[in-house]
Formats: sequence, C-alpha cells, structure tokens
Amino acid sequence: MKALRYFGPGDIHCEGMDDPRLEADTDIIVKMNLCAICGSDLHIYHGHGFSEDTGYCVGHEAVGEVVETGRAVRRLRAGDRVMLPAATGCGACRQCLSGMVGKCENNMAGCYGLSAALQGCQAEAIRVPAGDFNAVPIPDGLSDEQALMLTDAMATAWFGARRAQIAPGGTVAVIGLGPIGLMAVESAFVMGASRVFAIDPVAARRALAAERGAEVFHPSDALEEIREATCGRKADSVIEAVGGDGTIDLALRLAGRGGIISAIGVAQTKRYAFPLERAFGQGLTFAIGTCSVPFELPALIPLVQSGRLKPETTISHRLSLSDGAEAYRLCDIKAEGALKVVMSA
Amino acid sequence: MKALRYFGPGDIHCEGMDDPRLEADTDIIVKMNLCAICGSDLHIYHGHGFSEDTGYCVGHEAVGEVVETGRAVRRLRAGDRVMLPAATGCGACRQCLSGMVGKCENNMAGCYGLSAALQGCQAEAIRVPAGDFNAVPIPDGLSDEQALMLTDAMATAWFGARRAQIAPGGTVAVIGLGPIGLMAVESAFVMGASRVFAIDPVAARRALAAERGAEVFHPSDALEEIREATCGRKADSVIEAVGGDGTIDLALRLAGRGGIISAIGVAQTKRYAFPLERAFGQGLTFAIGTCSVPFELPALIPLVQSGRLKPETTISHRLSLSDGAEAYRLCDIKAEGALKVVMSA
Amino acid sequence: MKALRYFGPGDIHCEGMDDPRLEADTDIIVKMNLCAICGSDLHIYHGHGFSEDTGYCVGHEAVGEVVETGRAVRRLRAGDRVMLPAATGCGACRQCLSGMVGKCENNMAGCYGLSAALQGCQAEAIRVPAGDFNAVPIPDGLSDEQALMLTDAMATAWFGARRAQIAPGGTVAVIGLGPIGLMAVESAFVMGASRVFAIDPVAARRALAAERGAEVFHPSDALEEIREATCGRKADSVIEAVGGDGTIDLALRLAGRGGIISAIGVAQTKRYAFPLERAFGQGLTFAIGTCSVPFELPALIPLVQSGRLKPETTISHRLSLSDGAEAYRLCDIKAEGALKVVMSA
Amino acid sequence: MKALRYFGPGDIHCEGMDDPRLEADTDIIVKMNLCAICGSDLHIYHGHGFSEDTGYCVGHEAVGEVVETGRAVRRLRAGDRVMLPAATGCGACRQCLSGMVGKCENNMAGCYGLSAALQGCQAEAIRVPAGDFNAVPIPDGLSDEQALMLTDAMATAWFGARRAQIAPGGTVAVIGLGPIGLMAVESAFVMGASRVFAIDPVAARRALAAERGAEVFHPSDALEEIREATCGRKADSVIEAVGGDGTIDLALRLAGRGGIISAIGVAQTKRYAFPLERAFGQGLTFAIGTCSVPFELPALIPLVQSGRLKPETTISHRLSLSDGAEAYRLCDIKAEGALKVVMSA
Repeated sequence: MKALRYFGPGDIHCEGMDDPRLEADTDIIVKMNLCAICGSDLHIYHGHGFSEDTGYCVGHEAVGEVVETGRAVRRLRAGDRVMLPAATGCGACRQCLSGMVGKCENNMAGCYGLSAALQGCQAEAIRVPAGDFNAVPIPDGLSDEQALMLTDAMATAWFGARRAQIAPGGTVAVIGLGPIGLMAVESAFVMGASRVFAIDPVAARRALAAERGAEVFHPSDALEEIREATCGRKADSVIEAVGGDGTIDLALRLAGRGGIISAIGVAQTKRYAFPLERAFGQGLTFAIGTCSVPFELPALIPLVQSGRLKPETTISHRLSLSDGAEAYRLCDIKAEGALKVVMSA
Repeated sequence: MKALRYFGPGDIHCEGMDDPRLEADTDIIVKMNLCAICGSDLHIYHGHGFSEDTGYCVGHEAVGEVVETGRAVRRLRAGDRVMLPAATGCGACRQCLSGMVGKCENNMAGCYGLSAALQGCQAEAIRVPAGDFNAVPIPDGLSDEQALMLTDAMATAWFGARRAQIAPGGTVAVIGLGPIGLMAVESAFVMGASRVFAIDPVAARRALAAERGAEVFHPSDALEEIREATCGRKADSVIEAVGGDGTIDLALRLAGRGGIISAIGVAQTKRYAFPLERAFGQGLTFAIGTCSVPFELPALIPLVQSGRLKPETTISHRLSLSDGAEAYRLCDIKAEGALKVVMSA
Repeated sequence: MKALRYFGPGDIHCEGMDDPRLEADTDIIVKMNLCAICGSDLHIYHGHGFSEDTGYCVGHEAVGEVVETGRAVRRLRAGDRVMLPAATGCGACRQCLSGMVGKCENNMAGCYGLSAALQGCQAEAIRVPAGDFNAVPIPDGLSDEQALMLTDAMATAWFGARRAQIAPGGTVAVIGLGPIGLMAVESAFVMGASRVFAIDPVAARRALAAERGAEVFHPSDALEEIREATCGRKADSVIEAVGGDGTIDLALRLAGRGGIISAIGVAQTKRYAFPLERAFGQGLTFAIGTCSVPFELPALIPLVQSGRLKPETTISHRLSLSDGAEAYRLCDIKAEGALKVVMSA
Repeated sequence: MKALRYFGPGDIHCEGMDDPRLEADTDIIVKMNLCAICGSDLHIYHGHGFSEDTGYCVGHEAVGEVVETGRAVRRLRAGDRVMLPAATGCGACRQCLSGMVGKCENNMAGCYGLSAALQGCQAEAIRVPAGDFNAVPIPDGLSDEQALMLTDAMATAWFGARRAQIAPGGTVAVIGLGPIGLMAVESAFVMGASRVFAIDPVAARRALAAERGAEVFHPSDALEEIREATCGRKADSVIEAVGGDGTIDLALRLAGRGGIISAIGVAQTKRYAFPLERAFGQGLTFAIGTCSVPFELPALIPLVQSGRLKPETTISHRLSLSDGAEAYRLCDIKAEGALKVVMSA
C-alpha cells in the first residue's frame, strides 16, 4: 500500500510498504479515507521526533472504514465508518474505560506514527489495536472532515481550554494561532469567556482569530497592549499552543494574579527556566501536557454536530496521499496560508 | 415625588408620596433614572403579592444617581451613577460580603417594593439601606439600560442557568420565554450548551428565542418533539421560568435520566404534587429559588460589557413613570409584544 | 441449587431452583460466596416490589468466584474472586464505560433479583450478563465482606453524600441510621463535614452513629434541637435514607437557606406534596435517586482499603443461605439489633 | 512599647519602639495577646527578607484585643477579641469582599512585618489598616491559640491542600513537616485522602506526621518507596511546603500521571530549572503561591471548632515577647523539637 514514511530530517514522502495485518484478535484494519498533518508531525519532519527509527509510517489523525476485524472484536463490523483518536489505550482498564487513555493501567497508552512500534495512519490502511475501543463510530451529523478534526486537534484545543479553567465571564489569552490555537479561541468562547486575546506573529492567522471574535495582538506588543486593555489585570487564563521557551515565558507574563496557564504545545526543552519567585508572588498555576482524546469526545461531538464548534474551518488544503511530500512542505513553511492540511487516500 | 403605588388588585398607578429621607447614617438616596417592571411585580398587581399592605410604592429594578449620602457612607458620593440590585443585605456579614445576600447572617435579606417596609424603586427617588453595599457603581462600558437589566432579570436568568448545572456540550430546555426566559436561552449558550429547546405558547416569543439560536416548541408538543429530537434522551438541564404547577410538571418530564431542573419562576402553590417515584427512577435534581444578585455580577458584568449577553434586547417598551398604569397593563396582558417595559423618571 | 425466592408478601425462603446457565457468550457464572439483604429487598418482602412476578430469586448484593465464562469473555477467568455491583449495564456504551450504568444507552440498566427477568444473587450461583463489565475483580486488600458492602450499600451511601454537595467545613444531617445511613455518616466525615447530625427513632442505631462521631437526635426533636445547635442555620446538606413522606418532609425542613437535600431511600409515594413555596423562599435543591455503583468504585476502593471507610462494621448478623427466611425476618423487624445481615452459600 | 525588630542577619530581638497610632479613620489599634513565628520570618532572620529595611518590627501572626478604633470603624469596638489574618487588603473592593485580598483591586494586598511600610505584629500593639475588614472577631468556641493558627499557618496549609485538588480517595504526598506541613497532612485527610505520604529528614517530625495517620518517609528514600507502595502510581496530589529547588524537584517526581503539585513554601530561587519535557509527558499541573487568609476562614473556622483540624497541636514552645531572640534561635535551628513557637505580650 501507499504510505507517508519518515526517512530523515526534511524527508517524509509517499512510498510503498506492506499492508497492515491483524496481529491480535482484538485488532481491526481500517481503510483510510482522510488523514491530516499535526504540528507534532512537524517535529518528526524536522528530525526532532520521538524515536531514532527511520522508514516508519507517520501520522495520527485519520478517519476511514473498517475492512477487517479480529475474532474478538464485538462492536465494530466491516463497513463501519470510524474515527481513530490519536491517543490509544488498552481499552480494558478502568482508566481507559473512563476515557483517560493517558493513564492506561496496562501501560498501553500510545499514539500512531511516532516510531516503528505502532504504524502511522497517513497510509492507505491502518491496523488499530483494541479496535472496539480505539476506533470510534462516527455519529450521525458529523462529516468526515469534522470527525477527522476530533481525532486530535479539536480535542487538544478543548482540553487546553478546559485545563485553563475558563470561568464564564473570564478573560483568556491564546498564544499561537495555528489550527489548534484557532480552535482554542473557539473553545474559550464556548466555555463562556468574555474576551479572548489571540496572539501570533502571522497577520493572516490573526485575521482568522479576529473573525472568530478574538482581539488580536502581535507577540511583541501583546504584553503591553493586553495589560492596557485590561486595566492591568491581564488574562485569567492563558492557553499556550506553541511549546517554545519564549512563548511559555510570554504565557507566564500574560497571566494575571491567580491566573492559570495551560500549555499544550509539545515541550521543546528538557529544562525550562521557570520564573519561580514571580510565579509565587502572582500565585500562578501552570498545567502542561496532552489530552486523552476519548475523554473529550462526549462534550465535543454534540458541540460540533450543532455547529457551535467549527473545527473543519481550519482546513486550508486538501491533497492526496501521493502528494504527501508537498503537504509536509506546505505545513512546514506555512506557505499559501497553510493551516490544517488534509489528505485523502 | 411621583411613585407607582399599589392600591389593590389591578390598580397600580402613579401618585405623589413623600420624598425618601436618610434614616440610618449608612443610607443613601438615589434619584431614579430608569426602572423596570418584573414578572413578580405582576403577582402584586394581581393581588397575589407578598404582603397585605396597600398604598406602598412598588418596583425593585432601577438605576440612577446618588444624590445624598449618610455620614457613614464611604465609597459612594453624590453624582455617582449606580445600579440597585433587587436583593439587598446588611452588607456587613460574611455572607453578604461574598455576595450571598439571600443568606444574610443579620437577617436583613430583603427586596424593594414588596411591602411598606422597604419602599420600591418605581419612583423618582429611592432610599437605599447600607448604600455602600446595596448600590453598585455602574462600570464603564455599560449603558443604563444594560445596568438596569443586571439589577434583577439578567442575574436571575443566569443564576437559573448556573443552577441547572449546564455542562459544555449539554442540552438545555427553557420553559417560558418572557425576558428572563430569553436571557436564560442566551445564558445557556454562553455556558456551552450544544442545543437549547425553548418553549412558550406565544409564537412571537418563540420567534425571539429562535433568533437567539434556540429550537422552539409549543408547550403542548414540546415533550413529544424534544423526545424525538434527542433520540429519547430529552434535556440534560431544564430551566423553568414560569412558576406554575403545569410548567413545573413539564419541566420534570423534559429532564432526561440524571437531569437537573432549575425553577426560577415565583412558586405559585404552597404544596406541589411532586412525582416522587418517577423522579427517583430517573435520578432527578430539582432546584428552586431566587438569586443573590451581587453574587452573579462579577461574571455578568464582563459578559454584558463584551456583548456576549445582550439583556437590553428584551426591552420592548420605553415609557415614563407617569404612564405607570399603562405600563403595568401592557405587561399584564402582554399587549403589543410587551416583554421588558422600562420607565424613566 | 439453593436460592432465596419470593412467593408472596412475607414469604421469601430458601428453595431449590435450576442452576443458572450461560445464555450469551459474554455471560459468566459466579458461585456465590457471600450475599446480603438490602433495604429494598424488604420492599419486595412486604409485597411492594418492582414486579408482579412470584417464585423468582431475590437479592442484588453478592461476592463470589467465577466458575464459567462465555466464549467472548476476555478479562475474567474461572477462579477469579469478584464482586457484583447491584446496578448492571450493557458494558459497551459510553455511559456504561464511564460507570454510569443508570444511563446505559442500550437500555440495559438493570438490577439482579427485582423480577424473574434477571435472577437474584441470594443463591448458590448467579448468571452475570456482560460479565467482563458487570463483575469486578476484588482488589488486593479488600476482604469479601468489604467487597460485599461495595456492591450496593456503601456505594449508595457515598453517592447520597456526593449528591448532597458536602463542602469541607459544612454541616450535614442524615435521616435514617440503618446500614446506609451509618455509612452516609462516615462518608460525610470523609468529605470534610465539620458536624454530622444523625437522626433515627431507634436508640441503638443512634448510638452507632454517635460512635462514628455524629451528634444524634430523635426525629421528633431533631428540627428544634438542630436549629438550636446551629444558631438557626440548620444543615447545609441533608441525606434522607428512608424514603417516606414524613422523613422527606423532615429533610426539607432541616435544610438551611440554599441547602441541598439528597434522598436515597426508595421513594414510597407516587406523588409527594412538595412544599414549593417554602422551598422557593429558602432556595433549596432536592436530588433523588439511586447510584450507578461502578461510577463510585474508583473513589471508594482506596478509602475502604485504607480503612477510612469501614462499611463492614455495619454487619450485625452472619447466617447461611438456608436460614434465608430467618434472615429476612430479622431484617424486617430489626430484631436483635439487626443492621446488615449477610449470608454465606 | 516592646517589639521584635530586625537589625540584620541573625539579629531579631526585643527592643522599644513608638506605640502605633491611628493613621486613617478606618484604622484600629490591637493590643497583642499572642503572636507566633512563621517560616517566612526565618527568611527575614537569615537576611533574605522582602525589603532592604532594618529596624522594622517583624511578625504577621497575632491575636489580641481591640483598644482603639478610628472614626469610620463600624463593626469593631474596643474590647473585641480579634485575630489578624496575615494577608491584608483594602477591604472595600469586590476581590477583598469575597476574601481574595491577594487580588485587591486597589493594590493594597499586603502583609504585616515584611518591611518598615506596615509594622509587624510581634509587638505589644499593632495598627491594623481597614480594621473592620482586616481584624476578624474570634468566634465562640475558638481558643486564642486556635485563632492564632488561623491567621496564617493553618490557612496556608489548607489552601495548599485545596490547590492540590485532592479528590476523596486520592493519594497525597506532603514534603516538609514543619507546622504547615503537619497541618497539610491533617487537611488532606479532612478532604478525603485515602493515604498521605509525609516526607521530612527529621525523625521527630516524621513521628508527628505518623501520629496524624500519614505513612512517613525520609526524602532520600521517598521516591523509591512511594513508587513501590503505590504500584508505580505515585501520588495524585503533592503539597510542597519548603520552597527549595530540591524539594520542588522531588515534588515533581512524586506526582503520578496527571498529578497536581501545590507549592506553598516561599520560593527561594528566581528561576527554577523546570523539567518541562517530563512534565509534558506526565501531564502535570504545578500551582504555586500564598493564600488569601480571609477566603479560607469560612471552611476552617467550623473545622477547628469541631476539632476535625487541630492546628494548636503544632505549638511546641510558649515564650514571652521579651524572649524573642531566643524564640527565633529555637525556630532557626529547630532546637528542642521546635515547631510552632508562640509568644505572649
């Protein structure tokens, strides 16, 4: 089958690889319909990935159709339309059952396409372990593109906003206006934010945030201007969607007294020089990490179905799997206003 | 001065009465600028009020200007533009200080214009006890009409929605689409509802709810149609904004398993035949009561300032105090699409 | 096998019945080790049960050992020591997976021993549908008697306390000091209650509550004395563990302003004359219903393991299944200080 | 009057200074009855204080009696027995009124005895700004020593535990078993912890934590032993009550997946090398800062009144103000099992 594979820094392209096969009797095989590139795929693309492997198939956002099921699969059948949450678990322990795959008690918390251990889903077909759990039937009223966004990006943005403990009436700053940042802006409003301050160096991205109701700022002016716009109170909640030391620094400065910073960008430093004394004086809370996608779905599905969240509006490009190298290049250099880049099989 | 006074069922009209005077050195006198008629004023109008008194001045929603302050008043000065939350307290106990005037530890929880004990504010001037606490300076960015809505109706609607424990993604039914019901629809969306089902027998009121994003229903079809629209799940949260036995019955039927009913309409029965067995089987929660306005303001002020809540859009008529009798008539028979009726001094 | 069967009002006794057999390939058969009588079994005993059937096997609290598993059972094996939560579900829908079996999306919310439809567990063996889900392996550090209490009574008491929204420092009243009421007293303290007021007409039961740290009252004096003991504030939270109109009335009177009443006793009236006007004036919240046992287990298991909750101390009698008729009689007339009556196979 | 004054590193002793006088008409003067030394006073003692001043009177934990009131003081009178929360505010803005003095909108958040700006309370008399707000009448049923502990230490410990988001059934680690750490152990149990792991290098302090129900560890073994005691899950919540980089490092290691670290020790570093990548992988939340004492009192007062919290049991030494130099020496070197050292006037 065709698959996007990582061969070294800057080199992810479409090449043949063996079709996936059932390995356990709880596995299923899903024929990919749509997949997407995530910001963390770019870390791999840049050679700063999560393993030393090469040649493996990348990607962890996909929707498709079940084509084969192991003997012990009970809920899914061939022909079912499914989405594949990026975060996988054993699907049997209490943590997984309650959606918290990140705390899987059988240590099977995982993600597609980060190494050769679990094949990615930017391919014509994907093997899904614990298929009954890790593949979610797409409910009525969700398009494939909407479901695709729910597999990772929308869930991460929502989780980031939840963890920022947005109270109705509160003010929220969002740093980084890629797809996840834009969805975090939307999420903040759905959670009741009175004002959202959206920050990015790219004017076109700021414009998209402004369309979603945010007040927008360039990072170099953000602190001063937000301080002024809030009579010195700054933001009650800050969502950091980049992961760099500089943006985390800005996030910690944008939070007002007692403020909460939720960092969802993939951390790029082992040790970060945390401003301990200032944080103590200001009484800050700093939360960092990724989401357990299944946990977020019960709230998200009806919000997308009813159109209160429109994650599909962040899709800027629709290509085919064969154009994978070009798709990565677009995302990487943010060419042509690239936001979310989606590929079909 | 001129004041709207209650003389018996169906008879509230404008008549002279003595100007209010400072009685305690924490009192202030406020010259009324705008006042409004509340649904509970109509209970008085119908002769089902909260006291046997007659001749007293009614009304508990007003904004105005401070004209006189007692010796012990420290924060307010003549000339300050203030709103008067309907629910008053001593302003000195821990409960009042935290906004919960309804739990005032000095038993001074009160409301203007329910009896001769505390003069109403549908008058040219009002005495405000514990003025530093019970009169709230109108923040920048709020019009008088917006502030007026915050003194009771908007706060009650918001409280009703809060108590209905709306979770982001949840479904909400609102019964009764007068001003408070319409604001409850808005509140439910700000709190993250995926869908709001709005119910009223009057088509024009349903149309206003539909403009605000709700799916609308006539009470006689609501149960059947909402059941169908939700595949039998009905609503997670129900806000009852009428107060009659029939609407409370409907509210308890519209709640799905584990649902929460929040009743904010003034209760019109001493004992209501509560469907205990069914509620037990369905695991329902039934919350009833009025709000402590000051407690709700910190969240509401920024939401109105930023335009996420637009309570002023429920104002249908603007009259003068002298037209008080006509104003009450309009509200009573809901003539000419009357919703919120506002009077100026 | 031997089983306790209901033959009519006042007549539950041990008699032979067919051994249970696997009916679906997700079923398991559990050999009963210990089972217990619940207050709601007494409703059946009195002829006020949940069905018109007779001859069926009763009981819904048991622990035992897996002896047979259907072909599709994946997590359990013969020999596993399991507890059987009283509330069962399909174990496959999102609600069940998150523990909320009462909201089972496949309408398979159920309970053992309420009719002929699902055999009870006061028997030598029990068929458990969706065995992988509905039978829970007993974790290390829990005795069989502790696990038995977790299958229903302890979970119900805890749920009742949770729903009463006990805040640390709050005051709590508990009405009815049977096993569930006593565990509710313990639960209230674990949740941070500063004071617990425990109410029952039986002196011996009050003494047990006093041993657990509660201040105790006879129902006829409770209102007056608690009002006095709290300077008129009465209780922040009230747990009603009886289910009668009189005790619900008392519960609604014991709640202070803004108080929350959580009723967990099985409702004994179709329509209860709810004091609507007073509840509106006091701003009360009334929650009623039973718990989804699996949802409560993650918090309860470690609390019982560490000895902070001691549900097994409510066991007053240990008999054998053959003595079932006597066991019911003891429970019914509360003879010999009967609290929780446990039977072994 | 006599006062403990800071003259340089290692030199705090009792010396005369001018009696305090009313400066604003909302001030009151309080005659000190009991005061105590806080861990943060030791930072001053070591020359690492919060200002460059010398000669100023130190201390921020005291109870006493009102002896003089400004003209505008309305609630307090001479003779009132009061406690002085360490954290002060204007007492007039919405934040202060709701107890959050740390967010005082008039920028009057302060603390006694950190510089010459606001005199400390280790003196025979103290001037209290905004006396009606900043001095709290001691409720019935609280001894002076109990009230003294509520002015800072108990409130800080409780706040630390609250911010660690302890859920009933959760596991909690407490690092540093001085008075605040010991009270954090107690707080964790009141909030429903199933197990508390208490860590300190001093055996005598560990023994005190063990008496309060904790499992105790030496810092050098804590990580290994707690990992083992929890089957690798480590702690759900960690309270860090020291403030050093090493103990913060340990706190971040002791938290399990999705864990929450609440740091209440005074931060001793400007920039701390935060393990960003690991925290991202584990999904940690790190909260740091001090408490707004008045906010914590409504929950704490009833818990101390009812004996569920016993902060007074951490008092190890009772001296007089004249022995202030000795009192500081004892605290500093933790001689003679010194925990909380209290002085009378």
